[in-house]
Amino acid sequence: MKIAVLPGDGIGTEIVAEAVRVLDVLDLKFEMETALVGGAAYEAHGHPLPESTLKLAKESDAVLFGAVGDWKYDKLDRPLRPEQAILGLRKNLGLFANFRPAICYEQLVGASSLKPELIAGLDILIIRELTGDIYFGQPRGRRTAVDGHFPGAEEAFDTMRYSRPEVERIARVAFEAARKRSKRVTSVDKANVLETFQFWKDIVTEVGKEYPDVELDHIYVDNAAMQLVKAPKKFDVVVTGNMFGDILSDEAAMLTGSIGMLPSASLNSSNQGLYEPSHGSAPDIAGKGVANPLATILSAAMMLRFSLNQPEAAARIESAVQQVLAAGLRTGDIWSEGTKRVGTREMGDAVVAAI
Amino acid sequence: MKIAVLPGDGIGTEIVAEAVRVLDVLDLKFEMETALVGGAAYEAHGHPLPESTLKLAKESDAVLFGAVGDWKYDKLDRPLRPEQAILGLRKNLGLFANFRPAICYEQLVGASSLKPELIAGLDILIIRELTGDIYFGQPRGRRTAVDGHFPGAEEAFDTMRYSRPEVERIARVAFEAARKRSKRVTSVDKANVLETFQFWKDIVTEVGKEYPDVELDHIYVDNAAMQLVKAPKKFDVVVTGNMFGDILSDEAAMLTGSIGMLPSASLNSSNQGLYEPSHGSAPDIAGKGVANPLATILSAAMMLRFSLNQPEAAARIESAVQQVLAAGLRTGDIWSEGTKRVGTREMGDAVVAAI
Ligand SMILES: CC(C)[C@H](C(=O)O)[C@@H](O)C(=O)O
Ligand SMILES: CC(C)[C@H](C(=O)O)[C@@H](O)C(=O)O
Repeated sequence: MKIAVLPGDGIGTEIVAEAVRVLDVLDLKFEMETALVGGAAYEAHGHPLPESTLKLAKESDAVLFGAVGDWKYDKLDRPLRPEQAILGLRKNLGLFANFRPAICYEQLVGASSLKPELIAGLDILIIRELTGDIYFGQPRGRRTAVDGHFPGAEEAFDTMRYSRPEVERIARVAFEAARKRSKRVTSVDKANVLETFQFWKDIVTEVGKEYPDVELDHIYVDNAAMQLVKAPKKFDVVVTGNMFGDILSDEAAMLTGSIGMLPSASLNSSNQGLYEPSHGSAPDIAGKGVANPLATILSAAMMLRFSLNQPEAAARIESAVQQVLAAGLRTGDIWSEGTKRVGTREMGDAVVAAI
Repeated sequence: MKIAVLPGDGIGTEIVAEAVRVLDVLDLKFEMETALVGGAAYEAHGHPLPESTLKLAKESDAVLFGAVGDWKYDKLDRPLRPEQAILGLRKNLGLFANFRPAICYEQLVGASSLKPELIAGLDILIIRELTGDIYFGQPRGRRTAVDGHFPGAEEAFDTMRYSRPEVERIARVAFEAARKRSKRVTSVDKANVLETFQFWKDIVTEVGKEYPDVELDHIYVDNAAMQLVKAPKKFDVVVTGNMFGDILSDEAAMLTGSIGMLPSASLNSSNQGLYEPSHGSAPDIAGKGVANPLATILSAAMMLRFSLNQPEAAARIESAVQQVLAAGLRTGDIWSEGTKRVGTREMGDAVVAAI
């Protein structure tokens, strides 16, 4: 078994280092190889996703990913910007199923913007389709408008699209996941406006018939954005497309108030996966040793469970994280009166010790 | 001056009736004519936006709109569903500029899901482009995929697009609005993924140079969805496209906890406008006399200010609403311990009396 370790930019290096230490102490039988990605790869090789990095990712069973991006690359042409690396990995590895849990840890209820009674115990699993939709649809570009409000004007355009098998496979992922949880799936669409999402809704409904034990409902994306604020605990498994999933999974993560705790997994049909924290590269605090490594450490746990078939090791990490939280250790992002503020390294030490 | 009154479905009839009473008591010189729209129009004429209703809307200076939609129309073909009426009105009247305030009323802070200190005093103005983007882009439909992940499979697709003049005019609306407020505009895009929104961002930046007194910043839509939850008061004027605006304006409205209070305006380039509450038709409580008419009454105030050039009358309505809130009157949606629960009609009575 082989893991590609891609720390990336900003706080990526620091947080991935802690996750690697945690994996090391478990003493499992797999190889780890590190490579550059994002801005770091651009600096060294002129491309955010060099051939060598992509090759390593492809031949590995899993990718442990930190974060990419920094303001200083904003002026680069789009194909050279750090975030193209993550899009390229998703596309080239076929990572169509993105799992984004939004969990509110008991000890961190106070970190949320929401009133405690609305958020305590929250446990949503957002399943976002990750290789289709308007992210990758062709054609796209700039041209002269031939119709619309201003024929003859310059315009830019993109194509939203989903094919039947793409929707079927992500729907199955959602129904299967729901079977292991509360047996409820909410599919988010915009069928009242978009052809793509009327099609989405129709197919999810059809696939749902194969899962009579799972309750399915449908909600428009604008209403979903509202209900997440109003009563987030009404949701359990949520399935949606790439664009809506981008927005709603971030909204849901932020509702918990502790996005520094939230892991994610992106899987292909052979369970090869990319694992990364839900938060970004936070260039403003990079190198200061204050970033929260727990989302990355929990991503490593997801990796052990989903791609490396090591559920016991995954559980050991997760319970170690629970222990350090229970012991009152907190990085700055989740710190509150009465708890102990620690840095990235100390937090990693504590998890290692708890294991 | 002429107002087209289109109550629509669900609670639409009840809440618009109260707004009309408020307008009547102001005794201004304009004509009002009522017509069917949405499901009600479909029942009577077989179409949600009959020619006669569209004609009335076009020849009026303003449209006072209630709400459309009911579960019972879900099975109709898309062109016959109630929400097509609102899309048709936007398109045919060229209502490209949608103003969606998200205001947290002092007396209603407790109704929010958010902690009081995060939401008290919130006053965001979301300006959503309303006649372009993927809502109206052609081509769209179903076909056989020729490329992508599953060539040969059935697929559905839509076209996202914006032309230069469409972005320029909505950007100007935002900068002009900001000049009358705190002189800050946040433009929301997804330039890291979409050609359309890289173009959007470039043009908003260019237009911004004409407004050196207004501060402009840019944020990705996923981050905007997060920051609205984390620190909503950081926003002032927010400008974005039709699809992102649909999602973010609803999220922002729900953050206040009192969406039953929030009006909206949709204007074209001659200041002809459609005015409607931000909430929907709520078929579950229709006909019970419990709906909150204040968002519709405040929409009538916006109408007087923006389309009918009656700013004093608008201010009288707004201050009357403040008075009834201060007097402790509340419909069920905003009721809390220690306030007086009233129905739709009583709330209308109170506003009329305060005027
Ligand atoms: C960096 C960006 C391209 C990416 C996306 O939009 O998918 C990010 O927001 C995410 O959600 O992983
Ligand atoms: C009813 C629907 C078509 C509409 C939209 O998506 O624009 C609504 O959600 C709105 O925001 O006014």
